[in-house]
Amino acid sequence: MALVVQKYGGTSVGNLDKIANVAKKVIRTKEEGNDVVVVLSAMSGETDRLIQLAQKAADEPDPREYDALISTGEQVTVTLLAIMLNGMGCPAKSFLGFQVRVHTDQAFKKARILDVDTEAIRAELKKGIVVVVAGFQGIDPENNITTLGRGGSDTSAVALAAALKADVCDIYTDVDGVYTTDPNICSNARRLDRITYDEMLEMARAGAKVLQPRSVELAKKFNVPVYVKSSFTDEGGTLVTREEKEMEKEVVSGVTYDRDQAKITVIHVPDRPGVAARLFMPLSEKNILVDMIIQNASIQGHTDLTFTVSRKDIREATRIISEVVRDVGAEKLEVDDNVAKVSIIGVGMISHSGVAARMFDTLAREGINIMMISTSEIKVSCVVEAKYTELAVTVLHDAFGLGKEP
Amino acid sequence: MALVVQKYGGTSVGNLDKIANVAKKVIRTKEEGNDVVVVLSAMSGETDRLIQLAQKAADEPDPREYDALISTGEQVTVTLLAIMLNGMGCPAKSFLGFQVRVHTDQAFKKARILDVDTEAIRAELKKGIVVVVAGFQGIDPENNITTLGRGGSDTSAVALAAALKADVCDIYTDVDGVYTTDPNICSNARRLDRITYDEMLEMARAGAKVLQPRSVELAKKFNVPVYVKSSFTDEGGTLVTREEKEMEKEVVSGVTYDRDQAKITVIHVPDRPGVAARLFMPLSEKNILVDMIIQNASIQGHTDLTFTVSRKDIREATRIISEVVRDVGAEKLEVDDNVAKVSIIGVGMISHSGVAARMFDTLAREGINIMMISTSEIKVSCVVEAKYTELAVTVLHDAFGLGKEP
Repeated sequence: MALVVQKYGGTSVGNLDKIANVAKKVIRTKEEGNDVVVVLSAMSGETDRLIQLAQKAADEPDPREYDALISTGEQVTVTLLAIMLNGMGCPAKSFLGFQVRVHTDQAFKKARILDVDTEAIRAELKKGIVVVVAGFQGIDPENNITTLGRGGSDTSAVALAAALKADVCDIYTDVDGVYTTDPNICSNARRLDRITYDEMLEMARAGAKVLQPRSVELAKKFNVPVYVKSSFTDEGGTLVTREEKEMEKEVVSGVTYDRDQAKITVIHVPDRPGVAARLFMPLSEKNILVDMIIQNASIQGHTDLTFTVSRKDIREATRIISEVVRDVGAEKLEVDDNVAKVSIIGVGMISHSGVAARMFDTLAREGINIMMISTSEIKVSCVVEAKYTELAVTVLHDAFGLGKEP
Repeated sequence: MALVVQKYGGTSVGNLDKIANVAKKVIRTKEEGNDVVVVLSAMSGETDRLIQLAQKAADEPDPREYDALISTGEQVTVTLLAIMLNGMGCPAKSFLGFQVRVHTDQAFKKARILDVDTEAIRAELKKGIVVVVAGFQGIDPENNITTLGRGGSDTSAVALAAALKADVCDIYTDVDGVYTTDPNICSNARRLDRITYDEMLEMARAGAKVLQPRSVELAKKFNVPVYVKSSFTDEGGTLVTREEKEMEKEVVSGVTYDRDQAKITVIHVPDRPGVAARLFMPLSEKNILVDMIIQNASIQGHTDLTFTVSRKDIREATRIISEVVRDVGAEKLEVDDNVAKVSIIGVGMISHSGVAARMFDTLAREGINIMMISTSEIKVSCVVEAKYTELAVTVLHDAFGLGKEP
């Protein structure tokens, strides 16, 4: 007998028929002799509908109220599933963030989970009851409802699995696992049976939308085995796990892309201590996440500084940086939102040389100009013109031999 | 400076434009120097939509889950109003049942408020913040969400007003006050400036849908002045208050009707002690509310027993009573759901004789047969054929001189 945490995303609970499908899967898992904790997202589209309501109600919706509003989406799905399960003869009970006590900090709209009380849930499990927990939401020290940011239900599920010391955390979604790249771009993309936490993390950060990066960090920290599965078939699945010696190390495990990128270049910046801080501090104060940062070698005491931000932040970032440009005596600002980031990811890179070079060469042969490069131990990312996204992904996927056997 | 509790019903918060209208009213009240606590219902239609979802999810939705589901409607309106108020520069904060701590019993779907904590709300009011409370919901001793039954937001508002010792409780609705009868039936129906708690209570029980009866009981118990007003105009309004000596006592204050009635007659019941209990106990166990009960004088040890129930309960009531008919040795059962109850109400009846007789005479002159009669100190109700409802209301309204001056 195992303790299983199952998380179902918005498309898996998009209507009553789909929720009934989830109920059947839950009952099957229960009948196999497991204790089951289910974590749900809102019905697909519902969170967006609520966000639109908030945005129509005020230009800058109060974040405390915004969170309490959008958290209703999960409240609807967990109660409906609990109603169905009980109706099917399977005792079940829904729990909201304040009922579990999913403690978070006070950063509304992107709160971080600090701690999860397990007492109430364990008491129900002991009675043989299926526990259905609202994902995406928690409660701050003042009893305010908080939400965890986009895809936060993944994090809810992993945090619960960690706190409950669950045997496995199944993440059910609309794809049947993690692929070497987006199958919409490469028809021969291959599903991975296993992937390490670090690879998954880099993939998520580099634009793959299977799991929220924070959920992967948490899974790694507490060593929670995470299974990415399809809620529509019983086939397949990808296990996200720690690196094990016997794991076959592929040089590159996957190719990702991220079109949600914009590039800002500050030209002719005086190269003296503190300048970078003066540029990036005001961005971080406004919670604008800077992804890649490149600083050219200094020539005659001046340099150019290029960085990328999410496309939605481009207007505010430009406004903020324009002011700083004057203050620090830089020459001017250039903005380009017609770019994309393409990345290759793999733990195998650590022990293989020449991986980055092969990536650059592959892109060069197709005439794709590389605008920015950044690397980590297990990832190489290149910013290219947006129109080359599909081409770059396809040729890299082939170059590293990731496709299915023909 | 006064402490004002304002409650807005579903039609008053039916869409964002209407919520904006509420926001303006709240700000005006605040700017007049008052502390303001707002209580909201769900958007009109939303609770029904959620109930339908629950009923599609299971034949008999689990009541705990049902309550947690349908309580989301109020969560949406209170957060949207708080977002709007903040956006308009008026600091506001929403409170859900678990955040106020509106303590109720555990009777899901029709919970009763036991106690309301006021500490958190008072702290916000002290800071000049408008407090927006979700009506209709509370929390039981085990932290489960409960709801108060149809129209429960009225009760929430009055309970809050009582707990906070508010100076007044304004109930905003889609009509501009309490009328002598339904203006859709009598075009010359007149708005009452004042009405006593007892009259209002009888009116609500007799079918007028302005206020939930329980909210009136609570207002009477704690002597909370309740103002029924229109959320769309600033005109009019009816004050529901205790009886004061100087109040002009009209013999009859209003005529009400209730079409949601069905009549069951058990024929030839053996007239011995305990028979009535055997009939009505199983109904009360199933929470079927019996309204009027008439027992004819016994003839040769047998009697006929007639009672009315809500039309929605008729099928279950018939099933239950059919069994009892056999057990107690009654002859048979007759069901008639083609009836309506027409009532006249007024504190003046206490000191005026002949009011009931005038009612019977008025109906008789129109050829309307009276099937059942029941009376209280300040009410006379008659059950008549449903088709006579409008006629009965109109002639009674005229007979007691309730209409506007022509």
